[in-house]
Amino acid sequence: MVALSTNGRREEKAVANIYDDKRIFPDFRSGPLEEYRERASFCYKRMNVVLEGEDHIRLKHKVWQWMEQHPDYQREPGSDLERTREMANKRQHLLWEQQFYGVNEYLGTPHLLLAFGQAIFSYDFSTSVKFGLSTGMFPSTLVSNGSGRLGKYVAKIADNRILGAYALTEISHGTNALGMRTRATYDVKREEFIIHTPDFEAAKCWVGNLGKTCTHAIVYAQLYVPDDKHQGLQAFLVPIRDERTLLPFPGVTVGDMGEKIGLNGIDNGFVMFNQYRIPKANLLSKTGDIDAQGNYTSKIKDERKRLGASLGALSVGRVNITAITYVALSKAVTIATRYAASRRQFGPTNSPAEWPVIEYQSQQYRLIPHLATTIALRVATLWIGKENVDLTMKGFTGEDTSQAGMEIHAISSALKPVATWAARDGIQECREACGGHGYLKSSGLGELRNDNDANCTYEGENNTLIQQASNWLISLRRNNADFVAVSPLETVSFLKDMDTILQSKGQEHTPAQVLDPLNLLNALNWLTIWHWIRR
Amino acid sequence: MVALSTNGRREEKAVANIYDDKRIFPDFRSGPLEEYRERASFCYKRMNVVLEGEDHIRLKHKVWQWMEQHPDYQREPGSDLERTREMANKRQHLLWEQQFYGVNEYLGTPHLLLAFGQAIFSYDFSTSVKFGLSTGMFPSTLVSNGSGRLGKYVAKIADNRILGAYALTEISHGTNALGMRTRATYDVKREEFIIHTPDFEAAKCWVGNLGKTCTHAIVYAQLYVPDDKHQGLQAFLVPIRDERTLLPFPGVTVGDMGEKIGLNGIDNGFVMFNQYRIPKANLLSKTGDIDAQGNYTSKIKDERKRLGASLGALSVGRVNITAITYVALSKAVTIATRYAASRRQFGPTNSPAEWPVIEYQSQQYRLIPHLATTIALRVATLWIGKENVDLTMKGFTGEDTSQAGMEIHAISSALKPVATWAARDGIQECREACGGHGYLKSSGLGELRNDNDANCTYEGENNTLIQQASNWLISLRRNNADFVAVSPLETVSFLKDMDTILQSKGQEHTPAQVLDPLNLLNALNWLTIWHWIRR
Ligand SMILES: Cc1cc2nc3c(=O)[nH]c(=O)nc-3n(C[C@H](O)[C@H](O)[C@H](O)COP(=O)(O)OP(=O)(O)OC[C@H]3O[C@@H](n4cnc5c(N)ncnc54)[C@H](O)[C@@H]3O)c2cc1C
Ligand SMILES: Cc1cc2nc3c(=O)[nH]c(=O)nc-3n(C[C@H](O)[C@H](O)[C@H](O)COP(=O)(O)OP(=O)(O)OC[C@H]3O[C@@H](n4cnc5c(N)ncnc54)[C@H](O)[C@@H]3O)c2cc1C
Repeated sequence: MVALSTNGRREEKAVANIYDDKRIFPDFRSGPLEEYRERASFCYKRMNVVLEGEDHIRLKHKVWQWMEQHPDYQREPGSDLERTREMANKRQHLLWEQQFYGVNEYLGTPHLLLAFGQAIFSYDFSTSVKFGLSTGMFPSTLVSNGSGRLGKYVAKIADNRILGAYALTEISHGTNALGMRTRATYDVKREEFIIHTPDFEAAKCWVGNLGKTCTHAIVYAQLYVPDDKHQGLQAFLVPIRDERTLLPFPGVTVGDMGEKIGLNGIDNGFVMFNQYRIPKANLLSKTGDIDAQGNYTSKIKDERKRLGASLGALSVGRVNITAITYVALSKAVTIATRYAASRRQFGPTNSPAEWPVIEYQSQQYRLIPHLATTIALRVATLWIGKENVDLTMKGFTGEDTSQAGMEIHAISSALKPVATWAARDGIQECREACGGHGYLKSSGLGELRNDNDANCTYEGENNTLIQQASNWLISLRRNNADFVAVSPLETVSFLKDMDTILQSKGQEHTPAQVLDPLNLLNALNWLTIWHWIRR
Repeated sequence: MVALSTNGRREEKAVANIYDDKRIFPDFRSGPLEEYRERASFCYKRMNVVLEGEDHIRLKHKVWQWMEQHPDYQREPGSDLERTREMANKRQHLLWEQQFYGVNEYLGTPHLLLAFGQAIFSYDFSTSVKFGLSTGMFPSTLVSNGSGRLGKYVAKIADNRILGAYALTEISHGTNALGMRTRATYDVKREEFIIHTPDFEAAKCWVGNLGKTCTHAIVYAQLYVPDDKHQGLQAFLVPIRDERTLLPFPGVTVGDMGEKIGLNGIDNGFVMFNQYRIPKANLLSKTGDIDAQGNYTSKIKDERKRLGASLGALSVGRVNITAITYVALSKAVTIATRYAASRRQFGPTNSPAEWPVIEYQSQQYRLIPHLATTIALRVATLWIGKENVDLTMKGFTGEDTSQAGMEIHAISSALKPVATWAARDGIQECREACGGHGYLKSSGLGELRNDNDANCTYEGENNTLIQQASNWLISLRRNNADFVAVSPLETVSFLKDMDTILQSKGQEHTPAQVLDPLNLLNALNWLTIWHWIRR
């Protein structure tokens, strides 16, 4: 059954019936969890398949099985900063070479992108973020914002010969993206852009892969054309380091941000440019371009909208972050629930036997809501992930997706904060629920908390994102929007019945009625409208 | 004004008027905070003095000034585990040698113990916990639970020749202290105890200072006297390592717990004893003793009560933890508030000037409640710290303090969880409120979070402590207690008027009335009774 594939990797032939596949659903070892597993009122395998689908599960396990047997994917407790960086870098390259899910897979089975992402995040956040930046955010921005003239770079990425970064944030500007102060001045004579950092506050910073490893970065800079005319923020492909030696080019001062609270496998970096020249062709021209004389043209007149279009990658980013908070929380809840079922403390008087702490109501009260949140996040994640991929695919075929695009933007702006905060609180409760042993580094809970923490900040600081989502809701009301038309994903179409809903009263008389999802949904809709109307 | 003291330490003569002392209240450097400082409606120096008292402030600053100029107290970013351990150990020894606050100071000005503790915690949690275990918990348990026959050890501690640990927790038992399984069997023939660890689950673990540095530990073990008669859990002074070489003695298998989520300066350790013999005199005999034949006597008949008396150090521990969560939260809130006043993001349209983010309502809403909590914790900490010291002093003079002791036990069991959780949530909000830059290790917020995290677990896991405090309240009601008599500290004496309070209605008609502390207190009392009656 085991065969050695051409690239030396042992491959198992897939077992036709997934339920019989012991590498996916192994027999459990006997132990303290056995008793609780036997009491389960549902088949966990079926639940897994129903929620995720077979192909989703198979892809994840294929990746995990490869990682499990790969020497460079073994854990190394106590690694220092440099070693942690080195291993994350090595692992991301090894993963890329495996081509588990390349461009062809993406075009054929785009929905599995989510499964692939979750598979690698389950292993390690740093490796995954590095991988996501290099093989996702960087090339996809290049393709979606650039034009054919940058095709050779896309080929180099595919060959794993260059590694990219995405450089928007500066020392003094993060949330206020329009406030960035890096300059790109067009030099008509040499047909080049001069990239320049006016002062330290305008240094690009926090940029993943920039600290030590990237060869290129997509840099957002204020474009100036002849007569010092300002054309707003634009993205440029900027070479940072020599592809062979990784030495930075003259005019580029690049360095590492140093140790962080978490995610220390990623080399977040800063960069300052000193009158650094790049070819005219390196302007990512989809949202705006110049001719040889420096005359600027753009299909989008409003500068804010132009930036919005150019920052599309961040919207995808928010969908992905939601998906990985599911991974973080489910790992934490799994650790804590298993521990609670195994850990015994106190028992009947005069008996040496003790109760597993999961039997205490307070322990259940602490853990089970987070377990429920995990399932909710899993469902929400699969839904928004699918919608987002559908949208991208429709975009490829030229369909008008602007309405759904705005809705996903708003929904992901609400979902990302809610999901990352839910993971934050759940992981913390799990940490505490494991008592002293949960405080060991090897419990994994500290790392989950520290890594997830960044999710609250990047791709839009949570509090400012929540405002964006609220703005959308409020503007719908102010503009008396057609709630069905603005909501192809049906997230706010119920608002069309707001008057009826607001006047309705709960009719639940039995616990079963209260727990009926439809009644819960009605109650939630009522509450949403009530909050929304009060303002 | 500067004089070199005999031990080579530069000492400043105290400035008579504390407000003129620039080493305590230096002139602020000009910068972005200036504007906000000028707007203050109160004098921060007076507030400090009113809240803490001059001697409190002076002691803290004396410690800080010494640390600031000491080469071994400079920060070392990027230290690995071993180096972090080494420095915490060195710093705790150096601190001890300074005798800033020794036994004499304690007897003369006992209330300053809190100030001293807060001063060192402000610098570093690990150093302080090591110091607190070695110079507080270990000797005070020895003195309060032992008897004169262990006096030579007390002298050795004073000379900094031995270093102690407090070993209660085992691998399989934490909260359930009575369930400990380490055995101490009395051998009549040799008049010795045989300390023995029956299996791995009974290994002592998590014990601070045990991993690498302690020479002795107070070990809790089940006492067995002749005829295999079990006399319950007792504390023993157990030599662990040679005082000169720090090599463990034969029969003692001792090691380190490895890397933790935080507090990595402390060498938490585990130990297993193999038929390890200690002299009969090493039984801490205050709560129970044996004669040469092994006949056991104790003034306290009930085993639970005996353990309660012997674990008194943990009650003091909870008071101290409350005091240090104030330190942790105030550091975090200071960092985040200053950052919010300095960080600018967005501004009026078409203006390059931007607003400090503290001007945003949402940022205020996020930070100011935690600032208020900090003040509340400061007041609560000073109050319970003082009551606790008064209690200890009364105990020294032989006064009956059992009623106040029970009240402090209950109140500290409620306050410690509330305080540590408040710090946990506040530090996290501060981390997020600082955006990306808050995620740098050098922001200090990650370390505060990771170090404070342990406060939720040790000296009583928060959730189980809350239950203890509730038990006390419920039993008062069940027993129809005299609420004034059981509450010398007046924390629950208001319950005597419960019927009147419950029937009272809010009479506040203006915002000023609502904010009147007395009205707030009435409302809180009402709410407490309402919750308490409902059960
Ligand atoms: C681990 C990590 C990786 C990162 N990777 C990258 C990367 O690869 N590329 C890149 O370009 N960037 C990256 N970033 C930067 C990240 O995108 C920014 O940190 C983020 O956008 C927040 O911006 P800021 O840090 O400037 O926070 P700020 O905008 O300064 O926010 C500080 C505080 O002010 C509040 N605030 C700001 N504006 C308002 C407002 N209008 N109203 C109310 N409150 C407000 C915020 O809520 C926050 O509490 C990374 C950051 C981290 C931590
Ligand atoms: C950094 C650190 C330093 C420490 N230093 C020392 C030291 O110097 N000396 C020492 O002896 N110990 C030390 N400890 C151990 C510490 O005191 C214990 O971890 C603590 O008492 C909790 O016990 P536990 O870890 O066994 O948790 P458990 O008691 O196993 O608790 C696990 C979970 O079960 C729950 N639970 C337990 N019992 C009940 C119940 N009856 N009802 C409802 N829920 C329940 C708890 O709330 C918790 O969520 C240290 C621990 C840490 C983390």
